[in-house]
Amino acid sequence: MRAVVYEGPYKAAVQTVPDAKIEKDTDVLVRISSSNICGSDLHMYEGRTSFKAGQILGHENLGTVIEVGKAVDRVKRGDWVCMPFNIACGHCKNCERGLTGFCLVTNPGFAGAAYGFAGMGPYSGGQAELLRVPYADFNCLVLPPDAKEKENDYVLLSDIFPTGYHATELAGVQTGDSVVIFGAGPVGLMAAYSAGIKGASKVMVVDRHKDRLAVVKKIGAIAIDDSDGSGVEQVLALTDGQGADCGCECVGYQCCDYQGNEAPNLTLNSLVKTVRATGGIGAVGVFVPEDPHAKGPLARHGQIAFDFAGFWIKGQHMATGQANVKAYNRKLCQLITQGKAKPSFIISHELPLERAAEAYECFDARKEGWTKIILKPGH
Amino acid sequence: MRAVVYEGPYKAAVQTVPDAKIEKDTDVLVRISSSNICGSDLHMYEGRTSFKAGQILGHENLGTVIEVGKAVDRVKRGDWVCMPFNIACGHCKNCERGLTGFCLVTNPGFAGAAYGFAGMGPYSGGQAELLRVPYADFNCLVLPPDAKEKENDYVLLSDIFPTGYHATELAGVQTGDSVVIFGAGPVGLMAAYSAGIKGASKVMVVDRHKDRLAVVKKIGAIAIDDSDGSGVEQVLALTDGQGADCGCECVGYQCCDYQGNEAPNLTLNSLVKTVRATGGIGAVGVFVPEDPHAKGPLARHGQIAFDFAGFWIKGQHMATGQANVKAYNRKLCQLITQGKAKPSFIISHELPLERAAEAYECFDARKEGWTKIILKPGH
Amino acid sequence: MRAVVYEGPYKAAVQTVPDAKIEKDTDVLVRISSSNICGSDLHMYEGRTSFKAGQILGHENLGTVIEVGKAVDRVKRGDWVCMPFNIACGHCKNCERGLTGFCLVTNPGFAGAAYGFAGMGPYSGGQAELLRVPYADFNCLVLPPDAKEKENDYVLLSDIFPTGYHATELAGVQTGDSVVIFGAGPVGLMAAYSAGIKGASKVMVVDRHKDRLAVVKKIGAIAIDDSDGSGVEQVLALTDGQGADCGCECVGYQCCDYQGNEAPNLTLNSLVKTVRATGGIGAVGVFVPEDPHAKGPLARHGQIAFDFAGFWIKGQHMATGQANVKAYNRKLCQLITQGKAKPSFIISHELPLERAAEAYECFDARKEGWTKIILKPGH
Amino acid sequence: MRAVVYEGPYKAAVQTVPDAKIEKDTDVLVRISSSNICGSDLHMYEGRTSFKAGQILGHENLGTVIEVGKAVDRVKRGDWVCMPFNIACGHCKNCERGLTGFCLVTNPGFAGAAYGFAGMGPYSGGQAELLRVPYADFNCLVLPPDAKEKENDYVLLSDIFPTGYHATELAGVQTGDSVVIFGAGPVGLMAAYSAGIKGASKVMVVDRHKDRLAVVKKIGAIAIDDSDGSGVEQVLALTDGQGADCGCECVGYQCCDYQGNEAPNLTLNSLVKTVRATGGIGAVGVFVPEDPHAKGPLARHGQIAFDFAGFWIKGQHMATGQANVKAYNRKLCQLITQGKAKPSFIISHELPLERAAEAYECFDARKEGWTKIILKPGH
Repeated sequence: MRAVVYEGPYKAAVQTVPDAKIEKDTDVLVRISSSNICGSDLHMYEGRTSFKAGQILGHENLGTVIEVGKAVDRVKRGDWVCMPFNIACGHCKNCERGLTGFCLVTNPGFAGAAYGFAGMGPYSGGQAELLRVPYADFNCLVLPPDAKEKENDYVLLSDIFPTGYHATELAGVQTGDSVVIFGAGPVGLMAAYSAGIKGASKVMVVDRHKDRLAVVKKIGAIAIDDSDGSGVEQVLALTDGQGADCGCECVGYQCCDYQGNEAPNLTLNSLVKTVRATGGIGAVGVFVPEDPHAKGPLARHGQIAFDFAGFWIKGQHMATGQANVKAYNRKLCQLITQGKAKPSFIISHELPLERAAEAYECFDARKEGWTKIILKPGH
Repeated sequence: MRAVVYEGPYKAAVQTVPDAKIEKDTDVLVRISSSNICGSDLHMYEGRTSFKAGQILGHENLGTVIEVGKAVDRVKRGDWVCMPFNIACGHCKNCERGLTGFCLVTNPGFAGAAYGFAGMGPYSGGQAELLRVPYADFNCLVLPPDAKEKENDYVLLSDIFPTGYHATELAGVQTGDSVVIFGAGPVGLMAAYSAGIKGASKVMVVDRHKDRLAVVKKIGAIAIDDSDGSGVEQVLALTDGQGADCGCECVGYQCCDYQGNEAPNLTLNSLVKTVRATGGIGAVGVFVPEDPHAKGPLARHGQIAFDFAGFWIKGQHMATGQANVKAYNRKLCQLITQGKAKPSFIISHELPLERAAEAYECFDARKEGWTKIILKPGH
Repeated sequence: MRAVVYEGPYKAAVQTVPDAKIEKDTDVLVRISSSNICGSDLHMYEGRTSFKAGQILGHENLGTVIEVGKAVDRVKRGDWVCMPFNIACGHCKNCERGLTGFCLVTNPGFAGAAYGFAGMGPYSGGQAELLRVPYADFNCLVLPPDAKEKENDYVLLSDIFPTGYHATELAGVQTGDSVVIFGAGPVGLMAAYSAGIKGASKVMVVDRHKDRLAVVKKIGAIAIDDSDGSGVEQVLALTDGQGADCGCECVGYQCCDYQGNEAPNLTLNSLVKTVRATGGIGAVGVFVPEDPHAKGPLARHGQIAFDFAGFWIKGQHMATGQANVKAYNRKLCQLITQGKAKPSFIISHELPLERAAEAYECFDARKEGWTKIILKPGH
Repeated sequence: MRAVVYEGPYKAAVQTVPDAKIEKDTDVLVRISSSNICGSDLHMYEGRTSFKAGQILGHENLGTVIEVGKAVDRVKRGDWVCMPFNIACGHCKNCERGLTGFCLVTNPGFAGAAYGFAGMGPYSGGQAELLRVPYADFNCLVLPPDAKEKENDYVLLSDIFPTGYHATELAGVQTGDSVVIFGAGPVGLMAAYSAGIKGASKVMVVDRHKDRLAVVKKIGAIAIDDSDGSGVEQVLALTDGQGADCGCECVGYQCCDYQGNEAPNLTLNSLVKTVRATGGIGAVGVFVPEDPHAKGPLARHGQIAFDFAGFWIKGQHMATGQANVKAYNRKLCQLITQGKAKPSFIISHELPLERAAEAYECFDARKEGWTKIILKPGH
C-alpha cells in the first residue's frame, strides 16, 4: 500500500510499504479515505521527537471497514468509521472511567497510545491506504451510512474538534461565560467554535496571524491581534479589568514571544493574568518533557517559569492533557448529523495522498492560507 | 481591650488598644474566647509581607455575640459563633456561587478579605478581647448552645479544618482513593484527617519532622519521612509505581529542600511525580506574588520552575487557593456536633492571650511539640 | 399607587392602593416599568389556591430603584434592576448553596418565598407602580445602564427564561443531546430555547396548540402535534425507538388528556416512555399538594398514578421544583447583553397596567396568540 | 456440574447439569467458590417473574479463572475474579459512559443484562460449580492474589456493597450529611455502611425487624423501629422537623404497611416526607413493571400513588435503578484490601452449594438471623 513515511527531519515521503493487516481477533482493517495532517505531526516532522525514520504518520483517520477480526461484534464490514487518535483498550482503570487518552494497556509503561505518534506506542499511522485498528469495537465511531456527504466534517471527530471541545471542558466553560483562547490555529479555532456551541457569551481569541484572525471573526468570535504584545491588556479591557471567566491554552511549548523567540511560559502566564480569580484554564497545546535542543535550561527538561503565586492567589484551577476523544465524539457527531455543527469550515486543502510531501512542507512553513489539510488516499 | 499587635519583624506584643465596635448596621461585635495562631500568621510575624506595625493579628476566631447591628436578622446576642477567616459580602458574583474566599466587595481591587491579614483588607484580627464581624448574618456560623464543651474543636472551623478539607476537595479525593499529602503541619494533618473522613483507602503524608510524623500515624495515615529526599520514591513504591490518585500541597512557598534551602517548586514538582496520570492536585499552601527578599530571581516575582510538561503529559489537573470556609463549615460542624470528628487532636497548647509573644516565638521556631496554639482572651 | 389586585376567582382589577415603601434597612423600593403575567398567576386568578382577595399579583418584575434602605450597600438609586421571583435571605443553609428558591428564612415554616404568590409569604406583587424588594443587595440583579433598550428581554430574567433554563439543568441537558419537552407554553418555549443555547442536537416539543407549535418551529426546534395522542410514538420514531437523552415537564398539574380531562400524570408518564434508559427528567411545571376541587381522589391530595416501575427499571432520574433564579440570571443576562440571546420573541402583548383585567381574561382563556403579556405601569 | 436450578414457585433444587463452557473468544470460564443468595433472587423463587423453570440462579459470584478465550488479554488463568452482576459489552453508548447496568448490547431490546435473572438475558447464574463470563476483560474485577483470605468481603463487590453504595451516590450523600434509609435488609445495611464511609454525620435506618435493627446499631447508625408506623415522625424529630439531607429506598415494590399489606408507595412517600426541601433520594429497591398477581390496579402495571406534588414543591430530586457495579467495585475493593471496609459483617450463613434448597427456604421466610447467605460450591 501507499503511505506517508517519515524519513528524517523535514522529510515525509509517500512510499509503497507492506499492507496493514489484522493482527489480533479484536482488530478491524480500514480503507482510509481521509487522513488529516495535525499540528502535532510537525513536532515529528521537524525531528524534535523520538519518532523513528520508517514509521507511518497520521492519527486523524476516517474510512470504511474492509475486514473484521473474529472477536469483533459491533463493527461490521462496510461501516463508515472515524477513529479517535487515542488507541484504548476499554477495560483498564482509566478507560473504564472514560479517560481513554490515558489507557494503561495499549502502550505499556506509559498512559496513552496513538496512531503514528512519537512515544505513543508501536502503531502505524493512517496517512496510508489501509489502517489496522486495535480493540475495534471500542475504538471505532460508527458513522451514519451517508457519512460520505459530510466526510470532511466527520473526519474532524478523530482529533481536532474533540480536542478543541476538550479545551473548553477542561476550562469549565458554561452557558454565559466569557472565554479567552490563546492560539487561533486549528485547535484554538475549534475551541472557540465549541465555546460558541456551549453558549458562551463572549469568545476572545488571541493570535498574531492575520489569516487565522480572519477565521476567528468569521465564526462570530472576537479576534485579538497580539502582534505588539498587547493581547493581555486588550482582553482585560474587554472584561472590566477582571479577566475572562475561563481560558484555553491552544498553542503549546513552541509558543514564541512577539520578537520570535520560543517562550513556552508565555501563554500560560498570560492566561493567569487574563482569567478572573476562581476561573478555570484548559491546556491542550502539546508540551514535551524532554526537548534537548531547546535554548533555556528549563525548557530542556520540560519546565517553565510559571507565575504560580499569581495562579494560587487568584484561586484558579487548570486541567490539562490530550483529549479523551471518545468522551466527546458521539455527541459532536450528533451535532454534525443534525446539521448543528459544520467544523469543516477550518479545512483549507484537500489533497491526494501522493501530494503529502508538499503538504507537510507548506503546513510546516505556516504558509499563508494552509490552515488544515486533509489527505485523500485513493484519489 | 487587650490585643496581639504586630510591632515589626519577629515582634508580636499584647497591648491595650481601643475597643472594637459596631461600625455598620450589618456588623456584630463578638467577645472572643478562642483565637488560634496560624502558620500564615508567621509570614506576617517574620516581616515578609506588607502587614503594617500596629495592626492586630488573628483570623481563626470563636466567641459569643455581645452586640448586634440594626440590620442583622439571624445572629442574636448570646449566640456562640465561629467566623470563617474570609470576610465576604454574600452578594457579589463570587459570593453568590459560594466562592467566599474571593469576595469582590469587601477588599476592593482584590478578590478576598480576611481578619488581620496582609493584603486582605483593613480588618482587625481576633487575637483580642473583642472582634467586629462585618456582614454578620452571612459570615457567622452559629454554633449549638453547648458549644463551650467542644470549643477547641469548633474553633478549628474558622480556617484549618475547612482548609485541610478544601485541599482534598481541590484534589478531587473520593471514596477508595489513595492520597499523597506534602506537609504534616496543621493544614497537612487536617487534609489527611479529611481524606480519612471521605473514605480514602490510603493516605500518605510526607514530611521531615518526627513529631509531626508521629501525629500522622496517630490518625491512621502512613507517615513518610523525607529527611533524605526519598519521599517521592517511597510514595511510588506504595502505589505500584503509578502514583497516588490525588495529591495535596500543604506547605507553601517557604518549602525547603532537604539541605534546608528554600525551594518553592519542590512540593509541586514532587506532586507531579507522585500523582498518577489523570490525577488531581489541590494546592492550599500559601504562595505570595512578591517576595523581595527571596534568593532566586523567579521566587522574587512569585514564579517557580514548574515541571509543566510532566504535568501536561500526565493529563493532571490542579486547583488552588484559599478555602471558601463557608462552603464546608456547616457540614464539618455537623461532624463535630455528632461526634464523628474531633479535630482538636491537633492542638498542642492553650494559652492565655497575655502569653502571645512567647507563643509566636516558639511556634515560629517550630519548637518541638508546638504544633498548634489557641490563645484564650479573658483567661 | 395603582396595582393589580386579586378580588376573587376570575377577578383581577386595577385599584388604587397604599404605596409600597421601605420597611427594613435592607430593602429597596423599585418603580416598576415591566411586570409580566405568568401562567402560574392563573392558578391564583382561577381561585384554585389560598391566595386572598385584596392581595397584589405579579412576580416577574423589572424597574428602577428610587429609594435605598440604610443597610443596602451594592444597589444604588437609579439602578435598573430585575428581581428574581424568589425572595431569598442570602444567608440560610439553602441560600448559601445557591438554592434561593428554597430560602428557609423569608417565609417561615416553608422553603421558598415570592412576590404576590399563594403560600409564598406575605409579599406584595409587582403588577403595580411600586415594589418593595427585601434583602435588596442579594435579590436585585443590577442591569447595564442602557437596559431600557432591551427591557423586554431583561424582564424575562425574573422568572421564565431562568425557569426554562432550569428545566434543562434539572434534566441534565448537555452538548449534543436530544431533548423532549412536554408543553409549548412560555416555559416550554424557554426550555427549548435554552436547550438550543446549550448545544442540544435535537429539540422536540410536544403540544396541541397550533399557535404555540408555530413558535416552536420558529426557534429551530421540532414541533410535535399531540392532538390525537400520538406524541409519545412520534418522539420514539424520531429517536430510534430509544427515547430522547433528556426530557422536560413544562405543563404542570393542570395537564389535560386529549379528550380535555385533567390528567396530572400524563406528561410525567409520557416522559418515562420517551426518555431513554439512564436519561434525566426536569420537572418545572407547577404541582400543588392540595387541590380540593380536583376530580380524582389522588389529585385532591397532590398524588399521581406514576409509572414508577418504568422509571426505575430504566434507571432514570428526575429533579424538580421552582427555579433558583439567581443561579442563572447573571449568565443569561450576559447572553442578552452580548446579543447572543433574545428571549423576547415570546412576548405577544405589551399593555398598560390599566388593561390588566382584559389581559388576565384573554390569557386565562388561552385566547389564540396571547402567549405572553407584559404589563407596563406608568404607560 | 452441580447447580441451583429453579424448578417453579418456591422450588430451587441442586441438580447435575451440563458444564458451563467458553462460547465466545471474549469469554472466560470461572470455577465459582462463592455465590450469594440475593433478596432479588426471591422474586424469581416466589414465581413472581418470567424466570423459567430449568434456569440456573445466582448473580453474586466470585471464583478463579480456569479457562480463557482466545481474544481475552487482561484476565489470566488462575486469577481470582469477582464479577459484577451486570453483564456489559464495554463499548455501547451506555457502557462507554460507565452506565454498565444499562448495556444496550448484551440483552438486545432491553437496557441491562445479568446472570441468572428474569428479563436480563439468556445468561446462566453462578450458584454452580462453573460460570461462563462474557466480555471477560471488561466484566472481571481481578482481585489480589491473596483474595482467599477476605473472600467473604470481596464476594460482596459483585452486587450488594456497590448497590448500597449506589443508593448513597444516587441520593447525593456528601460529607456531613444526615441520611435516612428505608429498609435494613442487606442492601439497606450496605447503604448505611457506605454513608458512614463517605462521612455522613447522622445515618438513620427505618425497619421493623428487631434482628436487622440490631445490626444497624452495630455499625454505628441510628435504628428506627417503625413497627407502629411512627418511623416518619421519629426521623423528623431527629432532624429538627426539616428532614434528612438525603434518603435511600432499599425495600422495593414488596414493601408492606405495618398491618402487613403490600404498599409499594409507602417508602417513597415516606422519603418525600422525611427528606428536606432540595434533598436527594436514591432508589435501589427493585420495582417491576408488570406484577399480574398484585392486589391493586396500579400495582399490577407498576404504578404507584406517588406524592408528586410534595416531591415537587420541596424541589427534591430522585435517581433510580440498578447499580452500575463497575463504577464502584475498584474503589470499594481498595477499601477492603487496605482494611478500611469489612462488609462481611452482614453475612449470617456460609453453606455448601448442596444446601441451597434449605437456604432459599429460610431466607424467603425471613427466618430470624438469616440475613445473608453465601453458597460455597465445591465444599
